[in-house]
Amino acid sequence: MSKKLRVGILGATGSVGQRFIQLLENHPWFKVTAVAASERSAGKLYGEAVNWKMTTCLSHSVAQLKIKLAKPPLKCDFVFSGLDAVVAGEIEEEFAQAGYPVISNSKNHRFDPDVPLLIPDVNPDHITIIDYQRKQRGYTTGFIATSPNCSTIGLVMALKPLDDKFGVSKVIVTTMQAISGAGYPGLPSMDIIDNVIPYIGGEEEKVETEPLKLLAKLKRNRFELAKIKISAHCNRVHVLDGHLESVSVKLKNKTSLNRVVAAFKNYRSEPQKLKLPSAPEKPVIVKNEPDRPQTRMDRDTDKGMATTVGRIRPCPIFDYRFTVLSHNTIRGAAGGAILNAELLFNRGYLKLL
Amino acid sequence: MSKKLRVGILGATGSVGQRFIQLLENHPWFKVTAVAASERSAGKLYGEAVNWKMTTCLSHSVAQLKIKLAKPPLKCDFVFSGLDAVVAGEIEEEFAQAGYPVISNSKNHRFDPDVPLLIPDVNPDHITIIDYQRKQRGYTTGFIATSPNCSTIGLVMALKPLDDKFGVSKVIVTTMQAISGAGYPGLPSMDIIDNVIPYIGGEEEKVETEPLKLLAKLKRNRFELAKIKISAHCNRVHVLDGHLESVSVKLKNKTSLNRVVAAFKNYRSEPQKLKLPSAPEKPVIVKNEPDRPQTRMDRDTDKGMATTVGRIRPCPIFDYRFTVLSHNTIRGAAGGAILNAELLFNRGYLKLL
Amino acid sequence: MSKKLRVGILGATGSVGQRFIQLLENHPWFKVTAVAASERSAGKLYGEAVNWKMTTCLSHSVAQLKIKLAKPPLKCDFVFSGLDAVVAGEIEEEFAQAGYPVISNSKNHRFDPDVPLLIPDVNPDHITIIDYQRKQRGYTTGFIATSPNCSTIGLVMALKPLDDKFGVSKVIVTTMQAISGAGYPGLPSMDIIDNVIPYIGGEEEKVETEPLKLLAKLKRNRFELAKIKISAHCNRVHVLDGHLESVSVKLKNKTSLNRVVAAFKNYRSEPQKLKLPSAPEKPVIVKNEPDRPQTRMDRDTDKGMATTVGRIRPCPIFDYRFTVLSHNTIRGAAGGAILNAELLFNRGYLKLL
Amino acid sequence: MSKKLRVGILGATGSVGQRFIQLLENHPWFKVTAVAASERSAGKLYGEAVNWKMTTCLSHSVAQLKIKLAKPPLKCDFVFSGLDAVVAGEIEEEFAQAGYPVISNSKNHRFDPDVPLLIPDVNPDHITIIDYQRKQRGYTTGFIATSPNCSTIGLVMALKPLDDKFGVSKVIVTTMQAISGAGYPGLPSMDIIDNVIPYIGGEEEKVETEPLKLLAKLKRNRFELAKIKISAHCNRVHVLDGHLESVSVKLKNKTSLNRVVAAFKNYRSEPQKLKLPSAPEKPVIVKNEPDRPQTRMDRDTDKGMATTVGRIRPCPIFDYRFTVLSHNTIRGAAGGAILNAELLFNRGYLKLL
Repeated sequence: MSKKLRVGILGATGSVGQRFIQLLENHPWFKVTAVAASERSAGKLYGEAVNWKMTTCLSHSVAQLKIKLAKPPLKCDFVFSGLDAVVAGEIEEEFAQAGYPVISNSKNHRFDPDVPLLIPDVNPDHITIIDYQRKQRGYTTGFIATSPNCSTIGLVMALKPLDDKFGVSKVIVTTMQAISGAGYPGLPSMDIIDNVIPYIGGEEEKVETEPLKLLAKLKRNRFELAKIKISAHCNRVHVLDGHLESVSVKLKNKTSLNRVVAAFKNYRSEPQKLKLPSAPEKPVIVKNEPDRPQTRMDRDTDKGMATTVGRIRPCPIFDYRFTVLSHNTIRGAAGGAILNAELLFNRGYLKLL
Repeated sequence: MSKKLRVGILGATGSVGQRFIQLLENHPWFKVTAVAASERSAGKLYGEAVNWKMTTCLSHSVAQLKIKLAKPPLKCDFVFSGLDAVVAGEIEEEFAQAGYPVISNSKNHRFDPDVPLLIPDVNPDHITIIDYQRKQRGYTTGFIATSPNCSTIGLVMALKPLDDKFGVSKVIVTTMQAISGAGYPGLPSMDIIDNVIPYIGGEEEKVETEPLKLLAKLKRNRFELAKIKISAHCNRVHVLDGHLESVSVKLKNKTSLNRVVAAFKNYRSEPQKLKLPSAPEKPVIVKNEPDRPQTRMDRDTDKGMATTVGRIRPCPIFDYRFTVLSHNTIRGAAGGAILNAELLFNRGYLKLL
Repeated sequence: MSKKLRVGILGATGSVGQRFIQLLENHPWFKVTAVAASERSAGKLYGEAVNWKMTTCLSHSVAQLKIKLAKPPLKCDFVFSGLDAVVAGEIEEEFAQAGYPVISNSKNHRFDPDVPLLIPDVNPDHITIIDYQRKQRGYTTGFIATSPNCSTIGLVMALKPLDDKFGVSKVIVTTMQAISGAGYPGLPSMDIIDNVIPYIGGEEEKVETEPLKLLAKLKRNRFELAKIKISAHCNRVHVLDGHLESVSVKLKNKTSLNRVVAAFKNYRSEPQKLKLPSAPEKPVIVKNEPDRPQTRMDRDTDKGMATTVGRIRPCPIFDYRFTVLSHNTIRGAAGGAILNAELLFNRGYLKLL
Repeated sequence: MSKKLRVGILGATGSVGQRFIQLLENHPWFKVTAVAASERSAGKLYGEAVNWKMTTCLSHSVAQLKIKLAKPPLKCDFVFSGLDAVVAGEIEEEFAQAGYPVISNSKNHRFDPDVPLLIPDVNPDHITIIDYQRKQRGYTTGFIATSPNCSTIGLVMALKPLDDKFGVSKVIVTTMQAISGAGYPGLPSMDIIDNVIPYIGGEEEKVETEPLKLLAKLKRNRFELAKIKISAHCNRVHVLDGHLESVSVKLKNKTSLNRVVAAFKNYRSEPQKLKLPSAPEKPVIVKNEPDRPQTRMDRDTDKGMATTVGRIRPCPIFDYRFTVLSHNTIRGAAGGAILNAELLFNRGYLKLL
């Protein structure tokens, strides 16, 4: 590429914003040129305002950017949004209206009927709803595209190969989620040391509904939600990063264990075909060891972009059960949104403005 | 009581053995008078041989006991067995044959057709199989009674009130189990720091089968196993004590949420009626807060003998779902076995020899 | 006692306030009758306003108390203050002026020249400065008495026996402090998981100065500060409760290791002689095992009121070195203040108002 | 380089051995061609015998190597030894005798008067003792070179710049060491959860003596030990990797804080001048934030090869104090030994055999 697209980060000082900045360092297509945050930080240099929590160094070029208020215009060709849900809804619309593509990690627009809820390895075809969105909303160059919740993504990455081959009808899933999912400062340390918290506000609803849109069929600009019943139990456990999930699934068509394993192993999708820069080599890695995936051991597989599945075995009540692991702040947040941007760029939805 | 029964501890230096000794200090009916272990420790004073891992002090009287080999005779009226499964089977039989009641925490005899697998709050009536056992095996004063696995017990304490009132037909359960469940030295620290391990050898089989005997009907000296299908996912998480479980249940008879909650709250059983010394006031405590039970906050409820249930809510796939917590080394091991002994004493199965 | 003294808790909803309420349940001399907090909570029932973080149940009688603003009058004979340092200074003076004895856990008045900084096992004679304080400030029945910082107390409990017998001249101490010392919500979990933080704001200054007043001689209403140089390194580590400290001490008079050990073991003070209800049997427990005290294993010794010392050995640079452990939220906060109140009651400074 | 040197790993299945294999993947000069272990593993393929605990994948080429007994001959040009101290002494001598350069991480030969105890950034000149060693022992191409203990290395990296400029006379150091320092399975999880263990067998002796040889002057084949008194308190804390140390130092020549900071910042040594492949850009990184270095945040700086120093401030008893952090299994073990090999190769001590 002769010239990189200029990127703005909305909510740049927060956890997700920092992860965007970290992951975009040395990105072959994109370059951070603008950072926006709330009034508390606006006007300061990023390097001075941010409480940098990544373990790699903050790049000098971003540290020197002056933080803007999260309002258009921003000096960039598109924006990533890591805004808090309290403000994300309106601000994202404002940017889209002003001509900026908005690749959002926030929940606000996920269920808008003209907004794609996108995982490039799962439903890349949903991207075309953007044309309809632009028409509906009168957006020109701008649009909104969203990523799913961090605990949804691992689950759906695992369900997709099964749904394609055998049809999924019922899912009971118990999550064991990392503390980083609560952001910073997030969870008080006294709450999680030597403890499990069996509740995460709003999380079970997301896990039970988002897969239905992600696995939906898009027909004449309407999403036909997948006909899957999901029951989720969401727990917070004492790990830094990585959401591990115990899953039991009922399939529409009976099949053998070998074919289930093969469905996971052989699954490939657009990001792999297009060799997108952040794409994992394989969307789903199957572990054969009886005690894998493990959160700390496997979360960073393929730079945190691969989903790991293991313990695939028959379920005495449903058909099969397994354990799935996904990195919640990489694949489940900033990394997933960057992969979305890569697909959107490939398809011509992102351009130099 | 004018005179306490004398207790021998088999496997006295191990984790479960230590917990027996701790919990029996100041017991109103029982007194530790003999400790037995393997050849490595036999002949030494208990206080010198043991690597004492309890946070309360080892009593002087037990510290001064000389460790015997785990073979009859022992100076005691009955024995608790915290033996490793590799050796427990034969040794327990040997003691029973020699006239000693054996209250075992080991898995070996749990499924013997003439041995009770006992939770006093759940199936106190199973105790009478001991008469049959004695006859079958030619035991005189001796017998074997067993306790369930530490991850079974919380689940069954929660299933019993539901099974009594509405009938339970299917259960999908995901456990988040404490490291103390693996004994000492048990789990290497490098394996569990910042990690979840989605596998515990043999555990899922126990959770899927033991409840069927615990909830069985005993008819003419035969256990009619409960007709419940159970699917278990067992995970090890970073907590010291306390097994937390996310449970979805299908009932035989439809009912309302209120009646499910009431079933938990109103459940009482023999230990409560008899006011056994180690009985919790209520077998099941219901928490109303949306984020409870939590492992560290609730595991010690009623000295670790109560089971705590919370987050009771409808399940979109089965009927209801909830979270249950039980202290794995107290109720789930030594404390549960002591409660068994208390019931057995009350019923006349334990006596001064 | 025919009638218990009525106690008010200032800052009742905070961490220290909760611990006061927990430890005062069933206290033989004192009874909580008033709870005060900030405007946010005032007017609500305590049981509804508090985010109860203790693992024992909140007593019904306290749960039913209506929270008052932290201003006199309060229905009580004296107050414990667990107020935040931002507001503690003035409020405590206001209560003292209004006739209430104030037993404070806050730092504000610790170095007032007419206020005792008190550990009953260390400097019970300092209590008489209260008479002078009352005269100076025109207080009638009221006064202010303070407790030291949570990381000071274990250190001073260990230095006192040595200072009495041999004189202490220099101390280099490195603390490894619990997360509960930062209160609630306090330390974010992402900051401490798999981490050590080598800094606690203001802590080193406290550890370096408070011992000088605690070990001071009180002569004609003036504190002659102890002539000890202290260098402190304060670190936050991943434990819930209990501050462990590695200490090297230089003595004024040379002595043998045996005599150092004996000085610790034989130390007794007023709380032991008076058998105060919260007094540990021995102020300092000496552990002989090479790897003790350990934070989790020993912090609860004697209900968290004893200080544990171990690894006593020569120091190649100073004279001796050792490890000391103290429970930071019991002995180092609420429990220590309650022991202060017990001594003050015994000496006639606390009465029915 | 046209051809890489062939490397053998002694103790290849252990923690240190695994780290060697991980860090040598893609090394520009060295290539693992032989793996040796105890009888239990010998004869098996490495990929089948090893319980791989690294979070990166085991390379196929090493997985396919057949494990040999740790006895010469081995197909390699030199060996790294991560052997257990129980056997390392003799085996290392045997290999050196057989002509193999032995770069050891074990403690056995560290204090042999003709063996270098080497940190390339600290005492690269000590390397010449190898010539004397060969003469003394009749070794031809073989020799033994050792690395210091994992808790020594961070300390000495920090002391060296100070000793060069101002002379160091006394050091009191308290370590907070990671669980990985105990190897695998190493520390039981029940021992370290919510705990600090104030003792690590043999560790304090190493920290107090190894720096004296590392900072020694080598004169006519004799090490004149540095005249520094060190007092060490070694603690195990709940972190995976990274040893953090609180240090107070007395200098021989008074100096200003600014010059102390500058000494750290400006320090450079042979690995930097020679641009050795594993050399950190700067041996010592100075952090200005008041709460750094932190174990998890800073241990991986410069691929775990840099030492991080922070909180540099005057000490009220000695002259200065600071916090130092070093990655114990990279710089403090396998990575440090690899850097030794790189220097040895540069100086001609390692060659194609």
